[in-house]
Amino acid sequence: MRTFLECIPCFLTQAIEMARLVTGNEIMHKKIIDEVSRIIPDFSLGCKPPEMARMIQKVMEKQMGEKDFYKQVKAKSNDMALSLYPKLKEKVNNSKDKLLTAVEIAIAGNVIDYAAKNTLNIEEEIEKLFSEEFSGVGKTVFDYENFKDELNKAKRVLYLADNAGEVVFDRVLIEEMPEEKEIIYAVRDKPVINDALIEDAYVCGIDKKAKVISSGVDAPGTILEYCSQEFRDLFKEADIIISKGQGNYEALNDENRQIYYLFRAKCPVIARHAGVGLGDVVLMRG
Amino acid sequence: MRTFLECIPCFLTQAIEMARLVTGNEIMHKKIIDEVSRIIPDFSLGCKPPEMARMIQKVMEKQMGEKDFYKQVKAKSNDMALSLYPKLKEKVNNSKDKLLTAVEIAIAGNVIDYAAKNTLNIEEEIEKLFSEEFSGVGKTVFDYENFKDELNKAKRVLYLADNAGEVVFDRVLIEEMPEEKEIIYAVRDKPVINDALIEDAYVCGIDKKAKVISSGVDAPGTILEYCSQEFRDLFKEADIIISKGQGNYEALNDENRQIYYLFRAKCPVIARHAGVGLGDVVLMRG
Repeated sequence: MRTFLECIPCFLTQAIEMARLVTGNEIMHKKIIDEVSRIIPDFSLGCKPPEMARMIQKVMEKQMGEKDFYKQVKAKSNDMALSLYPKLKEKVNNSKDKLLTAVEIAIAGNVIDYAAKNTLNIEEEIEKLFSEEFSGVGKTVFDYENFKDELNKAKRVLYLADNAGEVVFDRVLIEEMPEEKEIIYAVRDKPVINDALIEDAYVCGIDKKAKVISSGVDAPGTILEYCSQEFRDLFKEADIIISKGQGNYEALNDENRQIYYLFRAKCPVIARHAGVGLGDVVLMRG
Repeated sequence: MRTFLECIPCFLTQAIEMARLVTGNEIMHKKIIDEVSRIIPDFSLGCKPPEMARMIQKVMEKQMGEKDFYKQVKAKSNDMALSLYPKLKEKVNNSKDKLLTAVEIAIAGNVIDYAAKNTLNIEEEIEKLFSEEFSGVGKTVFDYENFKDELNKAKRVLYLADNAGEVVFDRVLIEEMPEEKEIIYAVRDKPVINDALIEDAYVCGIDKKAKVISSGVDAPGTILEYCSQEFRDLFKEADIIISKGQGNYEALNDENRQIYYLFRAKCPVIARHAGVGLGDVVLMRG
């Protein structure tokens, strides 16, 4: 997906949020916003939005002299998600269609980045989703039958992670996949926003069921040109790709490869692009 | 009022809205956004927000080679407001406290800029306000008694206009002021967003009751340093100043002069700064 005009003010809002998380110094906040503003004229609308997030990360690193700005946020998300894990497993075990419930859980977990930024009570949000059986939430695009069929046939599953904490929700889905499958769970290579890194995958215990790798990317979306050759080979050869979150959708949607996108449509530009409602739970065969 | 960090993405959103109003060419939209982005590093948070709107106007003029981008929007607002005029007068005439109702009408008219940008049905909005007697709308700060007293004593009233169309609502208030008062109605000097100009004041018929002048300003807020000397003298000498809209509040709030601010709090930054709720109807003695 390319960048739309509306993304540009949003990039600045993201930079403000990030700057405020890192320092209380408003002079520094303005300095960061100024640097991000200076990039805008060179940023083509043909670029993918996570490219800008990658550049904001670099501006922040240069200005602040550190790298992992969301370390504490991520640790908190991991802890919170792990504490929910027994409940999530119970939901799956009590379900008539365990795989479907696990898919819903994985998508529900995709509100974690929003939660991190908006001090939303994630436990309440997840609980609400399930108690109302997703009744208030749109499912305009929810291609579960195809997903189930193709997952059944697949030998090698490539699963693209999104945020820390959310990994626990992905783990619940991966644990519903038959033993014999080879499952590869790919995370970002370097810190960027609250995206999951290798360490988060291990803390969330997903290594018990999947091989954890880095995609090589340092953007909050799997932009293939920034990925390692090893990852790109995997991307070609995997029987099924499961892509979590908006960032991966933005990064991969124009690639010539079938992918199952699982995300909550939290942004109006993405909702419009994907042809779904804002806030929808999306399982898209793209 | 100074500029806050949150204003910066909002400046870009305003520039996008403006650019889209003027042309359908996305390359031109991006060019305008780029030029506005280039100004941000030189724009101090100590500046008043309408200064940036003024600079955006200049960027637009340079890129587009014209000036009055909201000419049609303003004409439409004027027509629509004039068609509402008899109803507004009826409301005042049926009221137990005519001045209070006229004040409420003047503030209600301040949603016109928002309406212009959001294709809100202004007639419906105004109708709703009155049918519910402002019941859904906060009035955290509504200093009517002081306003009434000071207005009664004043000989010379300086009334600072905001948007085209809104002038008709101001006219309703001005028509409730006793005959013997000298009323001066000050508008912007040059086109900027949908702010009222001399021609709008005449079209809306406010010249029947007030002396219409230009403040000399070319920003969407009465920033005194851009005003004419004649206006600044008036500003000092007037017995009471009635200031309409957020832009005038932002421009004048730090001046050492008592002013009555009448506006709808449409922006969260201003609502916070003024200590009112978002969406509030505000009559503030500042």
